[in-house]
Amino acid sequence: MTTIRNQWFTELSFKKTTASQLKIKRILHSEQSDFQKIDVMETESLGKILVLDNRVNVCDHDEFIYHEVMAHVPSMIHPNPKNVLIIGGGDGGTIREFAKHPTIEKIDLVEIDKRVIEVCKKFFPQCTEKLNDPRVNILHTDGIEYVKNHPNQYDIAIVDSTDPEGFSLGLFTEDFYQDVANCLTSQGIMMAQGECPLFDEYNMQEIYSGMQKSFAVVEACKAPIGTYPGVHWCFAFASKHYRGKELWEERIPFMEELQKDLKWYNLQWHQASFVLSNLEKRVLGLK
Amino acid sequence: MTTIRNQWFTELSFKKTTASQLKIKRILHSEQSDFQKIDVMETESLGKILVLDNRVNVCDHDEFIYHEVMAHVPSMIHPNPKNVLIIGGGDGGTIREFAKHPTIEKIDLVEIDKRVIEVCKKFFPQCTEKLNDPRVNILHTDGIEYVKNHPNQYDIAIVDSTDPEGFSLGLFTEDFYQDVANCLTSQGIMMAQGECPLFDEYNMQEIYSGMQKSFAVVEACKAPIGTYPGVHWCFAFASKHYRGKELWEERIPFMEELQKDLKWYNLQWHQASFVLSNLEKRVLGLK
Repeated sequence: MTTIRNQWFTELSFKKTTASQLKIKRILHSEQSDFQKIDVMETESLGKILVLDNRVNVCDHDEFIYHEVMAHVPSMIHPNPKNVLIIGGGDGGTIREFAKHPTIEKIDLVEIDKRVIEVCKKFFPQCTEKLNDPRVNILHTDGIEYVKNHPNQYDIAIVDSTDPEGFSLGLFTEDFYQDVANCLTSQGIMMAQGECPLFDEYNMQEIYSGMQKSFAVVEACKAPIGTYPGVHWCFAFASKHYRGKELWEERIPFMEELQKDLKWYNLQWHQASFVLSNLEKRVLGLK
Repeated sequence: MTTIRNQWFTELSFKKTTASQLKIKRILHSEQSDFQKIDVMETESLGKILVLDNRVNVCDHDEFIYHEVMAHVPSMIHPNPKNVLIIGGGDGGTIREFAKHPTIEKIDLVEIDKRVIEVCKKFFPQCTEKLNDPRVNILHTDGIEYVKNHPNQYDIAIVDSTDPEGFSLGLFTEDFYQDVANCLTSQGIMMAQGECPLFDEYNMQEIYSGMQKSFAVVEACKAPIGTYPGVHWCFAFASKHYRGKELWEERIPFMEELQKDLKWYNLQWHQASFVLSNLEKRVLGLK
């Protein structure tokens, strides 16, 4: 294990000039899959972490923030979300949140690495609990290829990717966003993991302007992910029609009930999270 | 230097189970003042950092976020802010932002440690540039004692403290908040460094409920401070009268001009930043 020194897991970021560390009790699992290194560790204070290629991907302590934002934001904007596509997201957390919406009829999970799902079933059962929902279909194939061949089928597409490095690089290109747009219906919405604007490691302006070539509306909402480097996280919102703050009025009463049981999301937070500071506007190239 | 190992500065947090690290080019200054250890280091990628008792206090890369929030939020809510008290904040950054408001006639800075000011004048001149403004008076005395003896004098009080540890502990007590309320006029507003809700190291609910005994309105706004542990930072807003989202209408045209030159703050962000997620409501004990 190269990532553990003196009981600390270390994740380097910002061109290896900053790092975040978590004290580790023990390593629960470690393997090299066909696609990436997969580790599960038990931390001293934040529960278990799923680590993909030395980057924290899921943490027991706060995984609900990422997953609630990814699922409930688009579900509250689309007028009638029935068919959902999730690319990546093999931990199942985003599915767990979508499954709370009775209007949703089908959730297709395209996770290239089946080992991520198997490992999460064992160590993160609170995330995978809805993978057996009858609405869920799991496909172990390349998301980049998949979206090329399924036009006009989905109301919402989630790009639940790791950072733009290695085999995830293709999930941040203009061509990919065009294919996602094609696989969505005319009122479709894409939500994508959108990186941290404070350090701007990956040239976010290029990523977001790449989306603008295929989507009429490109915005960002923000939520803190405590175990991601930089913490202050953006979620790209790209849509053919609707704005991120335009809640679909008919479903507000449903969410007012549901949000009583959510740990992060509420409707007021949803709308506020789309308001950008001057720095965010500049770094993302958005208004 | 105990804090530097292999060119990395390490700040431990959350009961020493998490840590954030910055790669260091060199140590520019190091001393033990009468109150605390003061270090200045040049980082590899984020400019210089001021480190007080092994905790990052100011960073060139993003000090403007903290200082803009502290100064412009209360200045846009109070109907007629003339007299400002700043407790702590010897780096001068909050004064620099208040000085942009022509309505403000007097800024009293109560910084117990004069060495912080001297060190910042040398290494953070962009922060201290307004310490010579004729409206500014610097007092080297204990803020806790000062607020006991200056009743009914200030429109805005800023508690720009380090964490509730050591000699800053007294800046987080009910008695102190009562004294701050007494030193404010009937429309007075207090803003205070309000810690990170994601890990809740310091029992924030106790801190915020302590304020509620002396202030009619207690709220929180949030901004990311990239070099503070946990990043997602709360600023306590306590007021005798006004709500945090109630912008004072007459000064909106002034801020619409000023915010063109600000790096973080804008009026839309101000109002959105007071909207809390479910987790924040729970951890802070606020609605």
